[in-house]
Amino acid sequence: MAIPTETQQWQLHHHPDPKKTERATDFFTLVKTPLPALGPNSILVKPILLSNDASQRTWIGSAGSYITVKPGQVMKTFGVAKVIESNKDAFKKGDLVWGMLAWSEYMVFDDPAAQYPPGFTKLTEEQAKDPEEYLATRITGLTAYYGLLNVGEATSSDQTVVVSTAAGATGAVVVQIAKNVLKIPRVIGITGSPEKMDLIKSLGCDIALNYKSPTFEDDLAAAVAPTKGIDLYFDNVGGAMLDIMLKRMKSKGRIVACGALGSYENDNGDAVAYVKELRRIIMSGVRIQGLNVSHYAADYANGMKNMEQWGKEGKLRSLTTIYETSFSGVPGGMERLLAGKNTGKLLTKIV
Amino acid sequence: MAIPTETQQWQLHHHPDPKKTERATDFFTLVKTPLPALGPNSILVKPILLSNDASQRTWIGSAGSYITVKPGQVMKTFGVAKVIESNKDAFKKGDLVWGMLAWSEYMVFDDPAAQYPPGFTKLTEEQAKDPEEYLATRITGLTAYYGLLNVGEATSSDQTVVVSTAAGATGAVVVQIAKNVLKIPRVIGITGSPEKMDLIKSLGCDIALNYKSPTFEDDLAAAVAPTKGIDLYFDNVGGAMLDIMLKRMKSKGRIVACGALGSYENDNGDAVAYVKELRRIIMSGVRIQGLNVSHYAADYANGMKNMEQWGKEGKLRSLTTIYETSFSGVPGGMERLLAGKNTGKLLTKIV
Repeated sequence: MAIPTETQQWQLHHHPDPKKTERATDFFTLVKTPLPALGPNSILVKPILLSNDASQRTWIGSAGSYITVKPGQVMKTFGVAKVIESNKDAFKKGDLVWGMLAWSEYMVFDDPAAQYPPGFTKLTEEQAKDPEEYLATRITGLTAYYGLLNVGEATSSDQTVVVSTAAGATGAVVVQIAKNVLKIPRVIGITGSPEKMDLIKSLGCDIALNYKSPTFEDDLAAAVAPTKGIDLYFDNVGGAMLDIMLKRMKSKGRIVACGALGSYENDNGDAVAYVKELRRIIMSGVRIQGLNVSHYAADYANGMKNMEQWGKEGKLRSLTTIYETSFSGVPGGMERLLAGKNTGKLLTKIV
Repeated sequence: MAIPTETQQWQLHHHPDPKKTERATDFFTLVKTPLPALGPNSILVKPILLSNDASQRTWIGSAGSYITVKPGQVMKTFGVAKVIESNKDAFKKGDLVWGMLAWSEYMVFDDPAAQYPPGFTKLTEEQAKDPEEYLATRITGLTAYYGLLNVGEATSSDQTVVVSTAAGATGAVVVQIAKNVLKIPRVIGITGSPEKMDLIKSLGCDIALNYKSPTFEDDLAAAVAPTKGIDLYFDNVGGAMLDIMLKRMKSKGRIVACGALGSYENDNGDAVAYVKELRRIIMSGVRIQGLNVSHYAADYANGMKNMEQWGKEGKLRSLTTIYETSFSGVPGGMERLLAGKNTGKLLTKIV
C-alpha cells in the first residue's frame, strides 16, 4: 500500500460534565489530520486492537490523572498495532507491537523506544497468534497479579478475600488467582446481576453477592461472619463500597485500592471518592494501599510468565469481550465499557 | 484509713451532640455509688493521675469506638493509681500501678490481672519517682514510637516527614524521634499558632507551618518542593488535612493514620472523616495504614526501654502539661484537651 499522508483520529471534544447525562460517544469528534513523513528512525503503525479500560474515564476527566487527554487532543489507549512501514531495524513490516497508542487510524512514531510505557514491546511469534489474549493479560492481568500479590500481599494463609466488580476485567483475574493459585478458602465476589453471579461462581467465587440487592449489607455481614471479617479486600470501585467494607475488615486487614469507578462521575471536585470510616482504619490498624501497576514494570516479564503458566495449568482462563467495529465506531467501546454490561476484559477490534 | 464503702464518680450523662455547642463538662454528672467489699483477690486503688487523650472523645461518642462509654456508665481513662488495700500478693499498699482506670475516687478490682489492658502494670521504684513522666510516655510515647517506626516504617533514608498537631502529645514525640534519632533531613511540623511554631522548632522541626495561615497550602507546597513530595505523613487529624497531604505525597509514600481529631465533632454519621483524594492514592501507590497501639503490646517493654534510653541521651524530652484539681474538677481536663490550647501531653493530677 502507499504510505498514507493523513489519518483519521478521534479527538476529545470536551471533558465529561458529571452533572450532565451524555453518552461516551458525545465526548469525541472524528477529525482528519496530516501524518508526519517517516524519519530515519520512524515506524508507521496501524492500531488493530484497543484496550478499553475503566481508568480511561479518568484520563478524559477535568480532574486530571496519571495520563491526561485534553480537548483537541487525540484519545490515548493501550493496544496492539501492526507495523506498516519501518525504518528501524528492531521492527519490520507485519510485526505486532504492544504499547501506548491512540484512537488513530495510523500513527507515526519517530523513536518507538522513547514511547511510554518504556518502548513498544514486540509480540513473540507465539503471542502474535492470539493478540487478543495477549492484550487482555498484558495490562489487566498484571494489574490483578501485582495488586493481589504485591500490594495486597495475599498468601494462602488468608481466610477471606473479597473482590468488587468480580466479573470485570481485573476482578475476574483476581478471583481466579485467589482461588486457583493461592487456594484461599473463602473468596467472595461482588457483582451486579444474577447472570454475573453465576459467572463469578464459575470462575471460583465461593460466595457471590449482588450489590444491588436490598439485603446486600446483611448478606455481606453473614458471608464474612465465619471468619470474623475480611483479610483482604480488592477494591475496584471506591466510594460507598469501600466504606461498607471498612466496617467488615479484620484487625490489620489489607485493602488494595485499584479502582475508583464509583467516583468517576464526580470528578468536578465536588465529590470525588469518600472514605468516611477513617476511624475504623485507625481502630483496626487497617491498611489501604493504592495500586499503580507501572510501579512493577521491572517485573512484568516474570509476571507474564507466571500467568501464562497458570493459563496452561487451567488455573486462569481469560474472559474477554471483543467489540468489533470499523474505525468510525471506536468510541462505542467506551460506551459499552461505561454501560457496565460486559464481563471480563473489553477489547475493541478494528476490522 | 478506713476502707471506704462508697465512692464518687463521674458518669457520662449523654453522648455529645455534634450539632450543639456544649462544654465537655456538660457531658458528665458526679454521682455517689457504693463500692463493693474486697474479695480474697481484690485490691482497692485510688486514681491519682489521669491521662487526657484525644481518643477519649471517641469513647463517649454515639458512633462507637474500640472503647465505649455509654450514658450512665463511669468515664474510663488510662492512668496511675495508688494501692490503698490489697488482698493480692503481687500488690501491696502504697504501690503505684498503671492501667485502665475510671474517673472514680476509689476503685475495687476483683482480679487485677484480668483487667484490660493485660493486667495492671506495677511501676518500678525508679518509675514511681516520676509517675507523671511514666504516664506521659506509657501510651502517648508508645503511640508515636510504633506509629513512626512500625506502621510508618520510617528510616534514615526518608527525606521528608510531615507531622500534624506537632505540638500535641503524640506529635511532639514523633518530631523528636524523626529528627534526633532517625536524623531525617526535613521534618515539617504543622500546628496552629506562632507560639506553637516556636515550640516545635525547638523540638527539632526544620520547618514549622501554621495551618490557620491563608497561605498554608502554598507554604506546604514550597516546603516539600525540594524533595518533590512527602515520604511519610504522620496524621493526627484526618479530615481535610489528610486530603491536602495526599496531593503532596511521593509515589509509594506512607501515611500513618493515628488520629482523626478533625472528625471527632461529626460522629453522628453525617460526616465522619473524608479521604476525597482516593484517586491519588491509586495513581501514586500511596499507603494509608491505621495505628492501633495495642497491636504492639507484646513489644511495649522494648519500646519503653528504647525511649528511656533516648531520654537519657537527650534525644527525647517530654512535654507535659499537668492540670491539678480536686476530684470535683476532673472533667475540666477534657475541657482543656478539647480546647486545644495545651502543648504536649495533658495529665490530670488529683490533689
